[in-house]
Amino acid sequence: MSIGTHVNINTAPRSISIFGSTGSIGCNTLDVIDHLGGRDAFSIAAISGRGNIDLLAKQARDCEAALAVTADDSRYRDLKDALSGSGIEAAAGPSALVEAAERDVDCVMAGIVGMAGLAPTLAAARRGADIALANKECLVSAGSLFHREMDTGGGRLLPVDSEHNAIQQVFDSNQRDSVERIILTASGGPFRGLSLDEMRQVTPARAAAHPNWDMGLKISIDSASMFNKALEMIEAMHLFALRPEQIEVIIHPQSIIHSMVGYSDGSVLAQLGTPDMRTAIGYALTYPRRPHLPVERLNFAELARLDFEAPDETRFPPLRLARLAMEGGGQLGAILNGAKEVVLEAFIEERIGFLEMAEIVETVMDRMGPGETPTDIQSIYDADRDARRHAGEQIAARAR
Amino acid sequence: MSIGTHVNINTAPRSISIFGSTGSIGCNTLDVIDHLGGRDAFSIAAISGRGNIDLLAKQARDCEAALAVTADDSRYRDLKDALSGSGIEAAAGPSALVEAAERDVDCVMAGIVGMAGLAPTLAAARRGADIALANKECLVSAGSLFHREMDTGGGRLLPVDSEHNAIQQVFDSNQRDSVERIILTASGGPFRGLSLDEMRQVTPARAAAHPNWDMGLKISIDSASMFNKALEMIEAMHLFALRPEQIEVIIHPQSIIHSMVGYSDGSVLAQLGTPDMRTAIGYALTYPRRPHLPVERLNFAELARLDFEAPDETRFPPLRLARLAMEGGGQLGAILNGAKEVVLEAFIEERIGFLEMAEIVETVMDRMGPGETPTDIQSIYDADRDARRHAGEQIAARAR
Repeated sequence: MSIGTHVNINTAPRSISIFGSTGSIGCNTLDVIDHLGGRDAFSIAAISGRGNIDLLAKQARDCEAALAVTADDSRYRDLKDALSGSGIEAAAGPSALVEAAERDVDCVMAGIVGMAGLAPTLAAARRGADIALANKECLVSAGSLFHREMDTGGGRLLPVDSEHNAIQQVFDSNQRDSVERIILTASGGPFRGLSLDEMRQVTPARAAAHPNWDMGLKISIDSASMFNKALEMIEAMHLFALRPEQIEVIIHPQSIIHSMVGYSDGSVLAQLGTPDMRTAIGYALTYPRRPHLPVERLNFAELARLDFEAPDETRFPPLRLARLAMEGGGQLGAILNGAKEVVLEAFIEERIGFLEMAEIVETVMDRMGPGETPTDIQSIYDADRDARRHAGEQIAARAR
Repeated sequence: MSIGTHVNINTAPRSISIFGSTGSIGCNTLDVIDHLGGRDAFSIAAISGRGNIDLLAKQARDCEAALAVTADDSRYRDLKDALSGSGIEAAAGPSALVEAAERDVDCVMAGIVGMAGLAPTLAAARRGADIALANKECLVSAGSLFHREMDTGGGRLLPVDSEHNAIQQVFDSNQRDSVERIILTASGGPFRGLSLDEMRQVTPARAAAHPNWDMGLKISIDSASMFNKALEMIEAMHLFALRPEQIEVIIHPQSIIHSMVGYSDGSVLAQLGTPDMRTAIGYALTYPRRPHLPVERLNFAELARLDFEAPDETRFPPLRLARLAMEGGGQLGAILNGAKEVVLEAFIEERIGFLEMAEIVETVMDRMGPGETPTDIQSIYDADRDARRHAGEQIAARAR
């Protein structure tokens, strides 16, 4: 095995906790850790999951985790049983998650999806771990609060989302003044070529077929509507401390350029790769070293071409909503995100149409207004809950 | 004017000498210096040109250079007269160029084309200046010797060629082990789509029409034959201390991606831009800061697409010759370059055909063999002279 394959030549294993280990980020993280030398390179302090107890217990045994946590209080017994005889500690429930996040580790993979990831990730940030961030809410809903906790802890923030990881790879933080803009690429999803009228008629099944990445139903629909890209815009603003007008989106159907940074000398730097999330995960786990990974290499002659087109904010209104949220500040990120979750469910249940999702979110943002910039997690929970309630009312009103 | 526009906030002007100031690199360098604050940012120790005395004298007066040198001994009087009353020192001839290069400056722009650039650039390197390198022969013909002089002087080597500058911008020299390959982009020139038979019939006039960059006749033909790219491959090997097999070439007709670096985690990092050499010049002049330049910014929606195809080494044999030169080492770089100069002249004079250029260069490389790695400039001059003589003989033999 060549030098560079292992991350810890002559050093102790890096300690890590993986939150959301049974999800796709978590499974890929464990795979990357295996490739980087497994137990020789990383010691696993804690892993967490929710309903898939069998997989969680198997992962915990395989990677010799010290602790396994299910977010679901009612599954404590099941997890305890599944781990019996292994010597691995079992715990359950939201407060057990936060407690696990407060354990002293070098690095935390924050892979829990949704608002449930907020409290443990904020706790890990405050504790001082490097955060490999795959949870959107920490930045979209809690951007300034999350930064405050990172500053308190002193760890490094390393984005795992392919777009933000790409930007991180080519963002010169020693020369912030020379960064003019970042350019987030978007595949455009399955409806890139549809007319506005056609988009009104779209069904959940059609929205779920994403052309480049193999994803779940909700994330596929968020990708098709570009709500996903809207959240990424807000995340990017917080991650890289940019002004809203510095954040551009370009449709790039092949998803080979993962994102770009434009500089004051006319240079644009880009990170490219095959759609394999292990590159970004490896980068975050071993930063500032770059690991060796068995990821398929790009072959430009086979690619043959890369295409670009301007996004249409009429057909993809979430991009416009993201600008409103970035410019308005306050709780608008949390409101957009909370309302989006509810309209997404309603679309999946075919209670509202595809374009109604953005209409309702905009109405909720309008009605609630930005409010104060959140300084504690409770105020974010409140904004999220209010946004969900308002969105529910709007959906009900349309159903009448 | 915003912070970042000037390079020397609170510092003394950076002293610089510009060799080849009347050529296209030199003129663009003076333009960049104007944009970066002119005399407030840079003090010009010396500039040099050859036959265009009027322009050289005008530049010297405009930029308040301390010294102006013409490489042509016989033009000393003309230059002296043109500078009369200015207080600017005049000098002429190759040894005056070397003497100018030995003056103590922070940075030297090495913009002299051809073998004539070798001695002054080696002298400046030994003296310890940062070298903004636009001369190919320093690396192609004198790679290891040039590196030795750079090491002696301790200056930084900053490539100005758009491809190598692109690689420099995304090459992580702290993690050399993680660099798997570099990918030089090539426009493919005007004959990208021609058959082998059609290429045999190509005329100098057709070869001179380069699609993306506005260039002179010789460089246009070198671009059309890909001898230019062959030299860049050898340069890249020396610049970035790579193995021959780590250097790839991809045809990219739009010339927007200037080149790329492939890493061990699957990431490919790229620098993109409009075809404006001021970006690379500004980067080299102000490194490690990035300047603000009035270069046209990329608009990806307008670009619409970027294409790639594998280069065909049968139709573009110089790429194969570059590999032979890289693998063979010794004097093969100098031999390839010297023979190439002669066959290029012969093609322009329509004494040989387009594809005969590479055939003759290969014959010369075969006949002469690699020889010893050069340790002094005289041995490089010798190899260059012998290669030119051999090439001349081959051309004459074909004419019979």
